[in-house]
Parts: sequence; structure tokens; C-alpha cells
Amino acid sequence: MANYGCVNHVNLIEFARNIMLKLSCWEKEADIVAKVLVEADLRGIHSHGVARLKRYVGHINSGIIEVNKESEILYETSISATVDGKHGVGQYIAEQAMNLCIKKAESIGFGIVTVKNSNHYGIAGYYAEKALKSNMMGFSTTNTAPLSVPTYGINMLLGTNPIAIAIPTNDRHPILIDMATTVVPRGKLEVYDRLNKNIPLGWATDEKGKSSDNPAQVLTNMLSRSGGGLLPLGGEGEQLGGHKGYGLNLLVELLTGGLSGGSFSNETYKCKGKICHTFVALKLDSFGNPSDIIEHITKLTTTLKHSKKAEGEERIYIHGEKEYEKRENSIKHGVELDKATIDTLRKLGDSFNLNFIM
Amino acid sequence: MANYGCVNHVNLIEFARNIMLKLSCWEKEADIVAKVLVEADLRGIHSHGVARLKRYVGHINSGIIEVNKESEILYETSISATVDGKHGVGQYIAEQAMNLCIKKAESIGFGIVTVKNSNHYGIAGYYAEKALKSNMMGFSTTNTAPLSVPTYGINMLLGTNPIAIAIPTNDRHPILIDMATTVVPRGKLEVYDRLNKNIPLGWATDEKGKSSDNPAQVLTNMLSRSGGGLLPLGGEGEQLGGHKGYGLNLLVELLTGGLSGGSFSNETYKCKGKICHTFVALKLDSFGNPSDIIEHITKLTTTLKHSKKAEGEERIYIHGEKEYEKRENSIKHGVELDKATIDTLRKLGDSFNLNFIM
Repeated sequence: MANYGCVNHVNLIEFARNIMLKLSCWEKEADIVAKVLVEADLRGIHSHGVARLKRYVGHINSGIIEVNKESEILYETSISATVDGKHGVGQYIAEQAMNLCIKKAESIGFGIVTVKNSNHYGIAGYYAEKALKSNMMGFSTTNTAPLSVPTYGINMLLGTNPIAIAIPTNDRHPILIDMATTVVPRGKLEVYDRLNKNIPLGWATDEKGKSSDNPAQVLTNMLSRSGGGLLPLGGEGEQLGGHKGYGLNLLVELLTGGLSGGSFSNETYKCKGKICHTFVALKLDSFGNPSDIIEHITKLTTTLKHSKKAEGEERIYIHGEKEYEKRENSIKHGVELDKATIDTLRKLGDSFNLNFIM
Repeated sequence: MANYGCVNHVNLIEFARNIMLKLSCWEKEADIVAKVLVEADLRGIHSHGVARLKRYVGHINSGIIEVNKESEILYETSISATVDGKHGVGQYIAEQAMNLCIKKAESIGFGIVTVKNSNHYGIAGYYAEKALKSNMMGFSTTNTAPLSVPTYGINMLLGTNPIAIAIPTNDRHPILIDMATTVVPRGKLEVYDRLNKNIPLGWATDEKGKSSDNPAQVLTNMLSRSGGGLLPLGGEGEQLGGHKGYGLNLLVELLTGGLSGGSFSNETYKCKGKICHTFVALKLDSFGNPSDIIEHITKLTTTLKHSKKAEGEERIYIHGEKEYEKRENSIKHGVELDKATIDTLRKLGDSFNLNFIM
């Protein structure tokens, strides 16, 4: 209990919003940033939550993020668009792009929008989820800062490159797959380092490109870019399928930086963020009666959940369940933030003459 | 050299074609089966090559595959179609479905076709690749027999569920990601078993749902369905990201059995094959000038290939390179088949009064 505190999520949204307003954001920019950051914390994905605010402040002050920017549609067809985010606020650009996707899908069944020159957009799943209310599948992906190495490589040329897919069900929650295509994010190495624990082999590599169990060494190498980095899903080499994770990671580069004509992960954060995203919405009634499809899908999730568990395990999860249940709990009992985050937010609030209210 | 022989690929196609014709296939069915099977062998993917012929013969004889069947479009929009394969020949159904995708994408930029009641369609990559000649990205996926377990589960409820994505480049070869969403296919366990070698932990589980290094035990359990099976990409549990591979695997179920209203992997091969596929084609000119996009993508593949290698490694691959290079070699020097496969084909030929010519 001593190491964390619970914060009312409405207060947390208000605080994040006020910080963004102090940085001269438009209200609509501040609203969406606050909403998406706190959504991450509500779900327990603190790596993408309000702890990011400090970095956003730095990025706005240094000009990596430019506030008060509307994105521009560079190219458009009935099913697609290519958008220039003009180095604006990631969440604001992304929400508009996903809305455009959904509008296209409402009219023709499918929409795909690719975005260049954006910034960090928070949790990928937030945008994929927006498609659900229209009986659509939603997809969202983004490249990131270069933190991951290709199979048999040493240089961090690829991002953590998450993909998120949302699919409606008749269960209590939709299916929401939201995953980095690396085994773990950098934040996980930082946690192990703070606890003075070795990391499992297969998470990250040393300066020779070999699996390392030493998080401090890996983090130092990553910072100085002296070799090694996060491994793609499947780990080192090909024995456990690392080349497959590298393939998924590469796919994200192609769908984001590739289709948009923007920057690949290894060219991001040079003066500007230059992050690229891609969003997709696909209407279920393109294939038949959406209620029938959703009912059919729910049969599979039910079968999986009720199937026999491995020894010592009590539950088989459907993707998203853990996060949605955490969210319900956080809304009821407050968002759990660790002490370091609370201290950072307090200080950040002080610097803007804003009270951080728990 | 004693353990394998080289077979001229034209002879191999002719042999496979003649076997299918002996089973009363239409010429167009026999043509595409022979072509897709030998394509796999040419690329070194022998698990999906002519070694499958014997199983196809069995499936046709037992009625799992019905020859001389045209699929039926059950539902269609400008961007999509839902197809009933009528339990016909997988490759024939799949090629037509991918062609329909491409036709839709030619007209509107995007096409997605989902198929139910089909059969084994060979390598997923073959269909994805077909989109390349029209400056499109291609995507192909299929469910399979149930061989894989969900994270924390024991029962084989999911398939090996491959995904294939083809993307044009200006390199010598396009990018072709073609991967099962399990760590390895069952065939890899069989190879280790024959060599009397332990398998790496993280490939498959025992009857308690724990990683096993004993391929014979796992294969016996899989055959009797007494618990355990292939692990999703990322391996056992969540530590190395097994839940992510499980998510990808589940996604394939939803895209194939889900959208088509057909069978999920755990309902396949009950009297009929009931395999489901989904195909996508996406025109690059939906986003801008396709030549510019392809040139841009090629910059990334060039950077990756020429970047620094891990200690002891000589090459960083782009997905598909290994297989395309193998294909060139196989066309020049013959398709390498192992002795067991050659013997099986000889016997199969004898039973149909057909000569197997190398």
C-alpha cells in the first residue's frame, strides 16, 4: 500500500487536461490526450498512461510535438486516405483518422487511413475499439522510436510497433488484442532493473546481438545505441520463431511508414516525432448478418474460456478481458498509480501551478 | 546425398497433376493442386509439398474432399464476398477467391473474400503473392486441423493458423511473410522424433499443459488428444509473449471461421474438411503513387539487410528471400525431396499405374 496510491479517474483526466491546456493546447487536443492517457491507466497499462505527461511536456517545449495543428488529407479514395499529421498532437490526429476510417466503412464497408508526421498516440487499442459501436472490426497500428533489432541484427532499426484489433462479441467484453510486436516493452526492462532482477533470456540482446539477462547493461547499451535492443516476439534467432515476430514488426513498418510515405521507426524523433499510424475499420455486414457473425464468434470464445486449464492455472483469458476487468475496478476504487508517478505528477502540477488531487 | 534425390519440377508438377486426374479431378482442379504443391517444394517448404498427395488421395477417397465442385458466392458487396467452398478442392477454391479479391481491388482499391467449407489449400503465401502483379499487397490466411492450445489451456482447440502477407519491393524479390502462428508446425516435432532429439522447451506442451522436451510423448498425446499440443508463437504462458501468439492465432480463427460463418479449427475434419480461409488484396495506389511507395519500402529493406550483424551471423534476411533463393536453385538443379517422400510418391504412382520420373 505504501508504494502506490489510488486516484479518482475523473480527477486524473481533469489534471491531465489542465496540464495540456497550460501548454496552449486547444481544448479538443487536451480532451483527447487526457482521455486516452487515463484510459491506459484505468486498464493497468501504466507505460502508456499519465506518466507520459512529463515527456509530452518536454516534447511540446522542444517542438517535437506542435500544438494547435489540424492534419491534412493528402490523398483520398472511397476506401482510403493518406494523412499528414503536421507534427501535431498524436491522439488528436489519430482520433480523427480513425473517425475517417469508420465514416468510410459506414458508407462502403471498409476504410483504411494511413498517417505520417504524427506523434505518440497512446494505447493502440483505444482507436481500434472505436469501430465496435458500429458493428465493425477495428485495427490500429503505429511505429515508434527505434528500440528493436531485426533477427540476426544488432542495430535498433525497428519500433516496438504495436498492433491492436477489436472484434465485437456477445460476451461481457469485446475481444481486444493489443500487443507490441516485441516480446516486451523497454519499460519492463526498467522494472527488472529497479528490482535488481535478471531478465529472462529472449527479451533483449547485448552489444554482440546475443540474448542478455542483464537489464542494466541492455538499457545502458540502448541509451548509447552501442548495440543490442529489444527482441521481436519469438526471441533471438529462429528457434522459437523470432523471425516471425520480426516479420510482424516489419509489417507494421510497411503499413505505417511505408503506405503513408512517412518515416520508418529508425527515422523518428529526429527534430520532430514523425510517428506514422494506420487505422482500419471493417463492417461485419460485409459478410452476412452481423448478429449471426457475433453470435458465432462468441461460441468460440465460450469454448476457449471453458476448456481445460493447464496444471496450476485457473483461467483461460480472451484478449482484453484482463484490461476491461481492471478498468471496472479502477473506476470503482480509483486508478492505482505508483508512488514515483504520483510524485512526478505532483511536481509537474506544481510547475504549472496546478493541484494534483487524488 | 543418399537421403534425398533431386526431381525436375516440371516432371513433379506433371506427376502430381496426373495423380489428381486419376482421382477424377477436373483438369483445372488438378492443375492448381499440382502447381501449389510443387511451389512449396521448390521453396523448401516440404511440409506443404507433394508429400501431401497421399493424404489428398485419402481425403478424396473418404469424401472429405469432393472433386468437381464449384464454390458459391453466398453474400457479396463491392469490397467483399462470403463464399461456400462446397467441400471442394482447397487450392481451386482458394485461387478463385483470391482472384475475386483482386478483381474487387482493381475496381475499388480493396477486396476481402472469406471462404467456408473448403479444404487444405497448400502454402498461404501462394495466394497472397498473386496480388503483387497488380501493385497490390496480398494477404491470405486459413484455419487448420486443431493442433494448438490456448495460453494456460490444455486442449487443442486452435489451428496452426498461418498468415501470409506479400508486399512489392524493388529488390530482387518481394517481401513475403508466410508464417504459422504457432512456434513450429507438427512436422518439426516429427523430424526431431525421427532423429531421437529433444525439442526445445517452448514448442509444445505435455498432458499437464507444461512445456515438454519429449517429441515422442507430445506426438502420442496429440494423436490420442489426451492433452497438450503445439504452443502459440511466444511459447508457454506469458513470460515470452505466448499470449500474443495466442492472440494472433485467435485472430485467424475470427477472420476465417468467424467472418465466413464456417467452422473454427476445433470443428474441422469431422466428416468433411470444413476449412475456412480469408483473402485480402489492397491496391497501393489507394495511398499515393505506387512506384513512390515501393521505392520508399525498398529503402527500409536495404537498410535492414545492410545493417550490422550479430556475432557469428552473416546475413539479415527479409521475409521470403530464403524461399525465393531456394526456388531459383530448385528450378536449376531440381527439387530436393527426401528418400521417404520419393518412396511414397513411387508407391502412389504404382497404385495408379503412373511412372514417377525424377
